Amino acid sequence: MDMNPAQTILDRARAVTVATVTTRLFARGIRHSAMTGVGPLLPGMRLCGLAKTLRYVPAREDLDVLEVFHDPEHPQRKAVETILPGQVLVMDARGDSSAATLGSILATRLGVRGAAGVVTDGLVRDAQRIRALGLPVFCRGAHPATNLTAHHAVDIDVPVGCGGVLVMSGDLILGDDDGVVVVPASMAAEVVAEAQAQDRLEAYLARRIAEGAPLPGTYPPSPQTLEAYRREVERGG
Amino acid sequence: MDMNPAQTILDRARAVTVATVTTRLFARGIRHSAMTGVGPLLPGMRLCGLAKTLRYVPAREDLDVLEVFHDPEHPQRKAVETILPGQVLVMDARGDSSAATLGSILATRLGVRGAAGVVTDGLVRDAQRIRALGLPVFCRGAHPATNLTAHHAVDIDVPVGCGGVLVMSGDLILGDDDGVVVVPASMAAEVVAEAQAQDRLEAYLARRIAEGAPLPGTYPPSPQTLEAYRREVERGG
Amino acid sequence: MDMNPAQTILDRARAVTVATVTTRLFARGIRHSAMTGVGPLLPGMRLCGLAKTLRYVPAREDLDVLEVFHDPEHPQRKAVETILPGQVLVMDARGDSSAATLGSILATRLGVRGAAGVVTDGLVRDAQRIRALGLPVFCRGAHPATNLTAHHAVDIDVPVGCGGVLVMSGDLILGDDDGVVVVPASMAAEVVAEAQAQDRLEAYLARRIAEGAPLPGTYPPSPQTLEAYRREVERGG
Amino acid sequence: MDMNPAQTILDRARAVTVATVTTRLFARGIRHSAMTGVGPLLPGMRLCGLAKTLRYVPAREDLDVLEVFHDPEHPQRKAVETILPGQVLVMDARGDSSAATLGSILATRLGVRGAAGVVTDGLVRDAQRIRALGLPVFCRGAHPATNLTAHHAVDIDVPVGCGGVLVMSGDLILGDDDGVVVVPASMAAEVVAEAQAQDRLEAYLARRIAEGAPLPGTYPPSPQTLEAYRREVERGG
Amino acid sequence: MDMNPAQTILDRARAVTVATVTTRLFARGIRHSAMTGVGPLLPGMRLCGLAKTLRYVPAREDLDVLEVFHDPEHPQRKAVETILPGQVLVMDARGDSSAATLGSILATRLGVRGAAGVVTDGLVRDAQRIRALGLPVFCRGAHPATNLTAHHAVDIDVPVGCGGVLVMSGDLILGDDDGVVVVPASMAAEVVAEAQAQDRLEAYLARRIAEGAPLPGTYPPSPQTLEAYRREVERGG
Amino acid sequence: MDMNPAQTILDRARAVTVATVTTRLFARGIRHSAMTGVGPLLPGMRLCGLAKTLRYVPAREDLDVLEVFHDPEHPQRKAVETILPGQVLVMDARGDSSAATLGSILATRLGVRGAAGVVTDGLVRDAQRIRALGLPVFCRGAHPATNLTAHHAVDIDVPVGCGGVLVMSGDLILGDDDGVVVVPASMAAEVVAEAQAQDRLEAYLARRIAEGAPLPGTYPPSPQTLEAYRREVERGG
Repeated sequence: MDMNPAQTILDRARAVTVATVTTRLFARGIRHSAMTGVGPLLPGMRLCGLAKTLRYVPAREDLDVLEVFHDPEHPQRKAVETILPGQVLVMDARGDSSAATLGSILATRLGVRGAAGVVTDGLVRDAQRIRALGLPVFCRGAHPATNLTAHHAVDIDVPVGCGGVLVMSGDLILGDDDGVVVVPASMAAEVVAEAQAQDRLEAYLARRIAEGAPLPGTYPPSPQTLEAYRREVERGG
Repeated sequence: MDMNPAQTILDRARAVTVATVTTRLFARGIRHSAMTGVGPLLPGMRLCGLAKTLRYVPAREDLDVLEVFHDPEHPQRKAVETILPGQVLVMDARGDSSAATLGSILATRLGVRGAAGVVTDGLVRDAQRIRALGLPVFCRGAHPATNLTAHHAVDIDVPVGCGGVLVMSGDLILGDDDGVVVVPASMAAEVVAEAQAQDRLEAYLARRIAEGAPLPGTYPPSPQTLEAYRREVERGG
Repeated sequence: MDMNPAQTILDRARAVTVATVTTRLFARGIRHSAMTGVGPLLPGMRLCGLAKTLRYVPAREDLDVLEVFHDPEHPQRKAVETILPGQVLVMDARGDSSAATLGSILATRLGVRGAAGVVTDGLVRDAQRIRALGLPVFCRGAHPATNLTAHHAVDIDVPVGCGGVLVMSGDLILGDDDGVVVVPASMAAEVVAEAQAQDRLEAYLARRIAEGAPLPGTYPPSPQTLEAYRREVERGG
Repeated sequence: MDMNPAQTILDRARAVTVATVTTRLFARGIRHSAMTGVGPLLPGMRLCGLAKTLRYVPAREDLDVLEVFHDPEHPQRKAVETILPGQVLVMDARGDSSAATLGSILATRLGVRGAAGVVTDGLVRDAQRIRALGLPVFCRGAHPATNLTAHHAVDIDVPVGCGGVLVMSGDLILGDDDGVVVVPASMAAEVVAEAQAQDRLEAYLARRIAEGAPLPGTYPPSPQTLEAYRREVERGG
Repeated sequence: MDMNPAQTILDRARAVTVATVTTRLFARGIRHSAMTGVGPLLPGMRLCGLAKTLRYVPAREDLDVLEVFHDPEHPQRKAVETILPGQVLVMDARGDSSAATLGSILATRLGVRGAAGVVTDGLVRDAQRIRALGLPVFCRGAHPATNLTAHHAVDIDVPVGCGGVLVMSGDLILGDDDGVVVVPASMAAEVVAEAQAQDRLEAYLARRIAEGAPLPGTYPPSPQTLEAYRREVERGG
Repeated sequence: MDMNPAQTILDRARAVTVATVTTRLFARGIRHSAMTGVGPLLPGMRLCGLAKTLRYVPAREDLDVLEVFHDPEHPQRKAVETILPGQVLVMDARGDSSAATLGSILATRLGVRGAAGVVTDGLVRDAQRIRALGLPVFCRGAHPATNLTAHHAVDIDVPVGCGGVLVMSGDLILGDDDGVVVVPASMAAEVVAEAQAQDRLEAYLARRIAEGAPLPGTYPPSPQTLEAYRREVERGG
C-alpha cells in the first residue's frame, strides 16, 4: 500500500535480464540503450541501481597532481562521499584506456555507504582487491595508473556519456554478463514491468525449445504457443 | 573400409591444436587463416565442425524491427533451423561491437539440432546462459542488444568474412583457447594429417625441453632429434 | 651485509602493488610508466624481474619462413636461450593482434632457464599450455598464428616500446592484475622503497575506510591520521 | 508527359545536398543513412545515381592470384563490364585500409560505359589518374596494392554494407563534400522532393541569417518566417 | 597605456605558430596541449581567439528529434546566439565520427556575430559552404548527418575535452595547418610572449640552415649563434 | 658504360608508378610491401630514393626534454646530419598520432644535404612551411607537438617498421599519391625493370580502354592484344 514505488521498481529490476530490458527499449524506439565495451569486472556480477554521474575530462599536468585529493571538494572524492544507498556511480571516462578511474579504497568507501555499484567506460585499479570486495563494478578492464594521469574530475550529477550511451542521474542502471543498459527514469516502471513479463515468457519458450520444439511457432511464439503459455501460467506454472 | 572420410577427418581434427593447424596452413602459403579478435566464450572450449555461413549487413531502421522474426524465412532463423549435425554456424558480423548476433534460445535450438558450435566476429547476448549450455561459442564478447539493432541478416551459405578470414560453407572450423582457424575444404584432409603428426612430435619435443634440452637441436629438431623421436615412436612411446 | 643490492630490490618489489609503484613514478614526473592493453594471461599472476628486450618489426614474406628457426642465431630463439634467471623477456610487438609472439615450447624453455616471466604487447599461442606452466605471462591475449606471420625478430637488448612505454634491458618490470609497470633502472631502489611504505600506509587506511571512516581526513590521510598510523606502527601494528 | 519517372527523380536529386537528404531520412526514422569514413577523392565532386553492388570478402592467398583476372566472370570485372549508364558501383570492402579496390583502368572503363560514379568503403589505386578522369569516386583514400592483397570479389547485386550503411542495388546514391547518403529505392521519390523543398527554404533562411537575422524565429523558421518565405516564392524569389 | 591587455595578447598570438606555442607549453610541463585528429577544414586557415565551450553527450532517440531546435534555449543554438566577438566555439563531440556537429547556417550566424572560429573533435556538414564562408573551422572532417543523430547538446561554458585536451572557456585557442593548441588562460600572456621570441629566433636559424649551416651549433643555437642573432636584431635584422 | 648501376635503377624507378611496383612485388610473393596510412603531405608529390632508417620508441618524461637537442649525437639530429644525397629518411614512429616526428628546420637541412625525401608513419609539424620547401614528405598528417612529447629517438640504420612494412637502410622507397612502397634492395633492379615494362603496357591498354575496348581480352591483355602492343612498340608507338 504505502510501498515506495522506486523501491518496487528496483526490486523487480533485480530479477530481469539486461538483454530483455534492452529489447523492451528497442521496441519503444530507443535502439541504442546498452553500453559498448563495458563489462563486469568479475563474470557473474549483477548490478541494479539508480545512476549518480561523475564526469571526467582530459587531465592537464599543472592541475592534476597528487595534492588535489586533499581537497574534500574534489569532484571524484565528493561523488563517493555523497553517494546514497542504492545509487550506482557512473563515470564518463571518454572510453580512455590509459589510466584508471577508481581504486580499491574508494570502492571500499562506496560499499560502506551502501552504493549499488560502479560503472565506468574507463578502467579501474587494484582490480584484485575490488573483485574481493564483491561490489558490482562494470568497466573496460584494469590499469595501474592513477586517474590523474588522464582524467580531470569536473562535475557531479550532470548528463554524461558512458559506453556511448547518455546517462542522467536517476536513470535506472542494470548490469549482468551481457553488459550495462541505461533505462531513462521516465520509462523505468513500464520497461521493467514489460521485461519481467517477457523474461517469464522466454523462460517458458526456452524450455519448449530445449525439449525439441522448432523455432517457427515457438520463438517468437505463435498465438497457439501464447495460449499454451497462458494456460500454464493459470495452472501456476 | 567404408568409413565416412569426412567423419574421419573430423575425428582426427578434434585431437589437433589450432596453433599447429595454423602453422601447417602457413607452410602451404596460407599465411592468414586464423581469425583476429575471436575467442571462446568460456576458456577451455574446443570447437570442431564444418562451416555453415550466415551473413549480416548493417541494419536499416525500417526493415529491422521485432516483427521480422515471425517470418520463418528470416535468414538468421532459417540458418538455425536448417543446420545439420556437426556443422558450425559462422556469422559475418563485420566485427561490429554494438549489438549481439545470437541469444541463448537460438543457441539452445542449435544444440538440440546437433550443431558443433557457433563462430561470430560479433557479440552474443544471454552470455551466462549460453555458457551454461556447453555449446562451443567463439565470439568477440557479449552485448545485451538484439541483433536487429545493428545487423540485417541477408544470406546463408555464401562466402563470408569472419574475423578477417574468408569462410565458405564446408570449410573445416577448429577453435580452442588460441582462437579459430579456417581450413579450406580442399586441404582439410592433408592439413589435419600433417597437424596430427606435428602435434605428436611437438609433444615429444616439449617433454625434452621441459627436461632441460636447449632449443638448438631440439626445437626445431635436428636430424638427430628426429631420429631419436622416430626410435621412441617405434618403441611405442 | 654482503647482500646483493639488486636482489634486495627484487625481494622488496615482489611485495608491492603495481598501482602503487605507478603512483610513485607519477610523483616523480613519470606520468606514463604503465603499459596499456597488456594484462596477465591468467588472473592472479604476479610478475617481478629485470627486463631483457626483444624487438620485432613487420614480417616480410621472403624472409620470415619456417626454416629460419633452424638458425640458432635467430633473435627470438637467441633471446630465449640467453635469458638469465630473474629476467623478464619483454617483446615489442607493435601492439599487433594478427599473430602470436611466443608459444608454449619457448615458454617452457624460459621456465627451465629461470626466467621471471614474459611481457609482450602482442599475443601468445598455446595459451592453455602456457597457463598450465605457471610462468607469469602478460600479453594482449592469444592467437594461433606463428610469429612469422606478422613479426620479424631483429634485435636483443635494445630499447623498445611495449604497451606504449619505453623499456630498456635492466629496467624493473612488475605485473599484477592491474597490468605492467616499467621502473627505470636508475630509480628502482628508491621507487620500490617508497612504494613499500605507501602500500603499508594504504593497508592501514583501507582498514579504516572499511571500518567506516570517511574519505576526508583518511584518504589522503590528514596529519592526525598519519600520526595515528605512526603510533600503530610503533606498537607493531 | 512521357517522362521516365526514375529519370525525373535523378534529375531532381542532382540538385539537392546530401546533408538535406540525410535530414529528410532522419525525419522518417532512418537515423543512420549516411556512410562513415567515405569522402570524395577530389573535393567538390558530386555523385548521383542508382546503386549496383559488388561484394568483397577477405582474400585467401591460394585463390587470389593475378591470374584470376583472366576470367571474364571474375565478379569485379563482371561488375564493371555490366554496369549500366547512370549506375554507381558500390563496393563493400569491409572498411579495410590495407589494399585498393579499384584502379584507373577499371575506372576508365566505368566512365566509358556511362557509370555515374564509384563508392567504396575501401581505397583506390592510381588515385592521380582517377582524379584526372573526372569520374566521381568516393572512398576512404588511396593505396597502391592490388585488391587481391586483401579482397576476394564474390557477389554482384546482393545487399551489402558500405561505410556502415545497408546498400541494395537500385538504391539512390548521392555524394558531395559531406559524404555519401543511401536512399532506399522505395523512398527515393518522396525524399528527393522533400529535400528539394527544404534546400530552397534553407537557401532563403541562410540569406536571412547572413543579413543579420538571429537564429530564434529564423532557423528553424517561425510561422512568420515561413509566411515571408512563401510570399517571396510567390513573387518569384 | 589604456590598451586592453587581452586584445594585446590576441594580437600577438595571431603572429605565432601553433608548433612554437606547443613547445613553450612543453617547456612548462604541459606536454599534452595540442589536439589530436583535429585540423583545418581548408588548408591554410589560421585561428586565434578565446574558447567558449559547448558539450555534447550521446543522443537518445526520444530526446533528440528535429523539433528540439524550435527551443531557443537548446544549448547548441544558445551557444551560437550568445557567442561574443573574438570567441571560438569549441565543441566536445567525443571524437565521434558518425554525425556532424554544426552546419553552414549556424556557421554563417557565428560569422555574423564576430566569432573567431570553430573547433570540434567531431565533424561538420555543408562543408563546401562553410569553406566558402571563410570562417576558420577546425574539425575531424565532414559528415552529412544532423548532430541529433549522435549528439545531445547539454552544456555551455563548462570544462570539456576536445581532441584529447582539456578546454575551459577563456582559454586561448590557436590553430593552423599543424592543428589546434589550447593555452590555459593563466599562462596565455607569458606563453605568447615567449613564442613570439622563439618564432623570431627560429626564422633566423631557418635562414642560416637554408644557407647551409649544419645543425650542430645552429639548431639548437650555440652561444655564438645566439650572439650573432642578437647582433642582427640590434642591427634591425 | 661506366654508369652507376644504383643510379640507373633510381633513374628508372622515378618513372614507374607505386601501384605497378606493388603489383610486381605481389607477383613475387611479397603481398604486403606498401605502407598503410602514409600519404604525401602535398598531393602530387613523388618520392624516389634509398632508405636511411631512424627508430623512435615511446618517450620517457625524464629523458626526453628540450635540452637533449644540444647533443649532436642525438639520433634524430645525427640522422639528418649524416644523410647522403639521394637517401630517404624513413622514421618508425609506431603509427603514433599524438606528436610530430620532424619540423621544417630539419626538413630544410635535409633538403640542403640533398636528401630525396622523408617518410614517417607519424606526423610532421610546420606542415605549411615543409610544403613550401618542395621536399617530398610522406606521413600520416600534421601535429604541432615536438617529437619529444611522444618519441625517444634511439637508433639509426637498423631495420624498422613503417606503416606496417619492414624497411632496411638501402631498400628502394617510392612514393606517389597512392602511398609508399618498399622494394627490398636485393629485388630492386628486377622489380623496377618489370614495373617499367608493365607501366608501358598499361598505358597502351588504358588508351584502348578509353577508346572503348571491353575489359575481356584487353585488361588483362589476351595474346592478340599483347601481339598488337608489340607491333605498336616496334612501330615506335
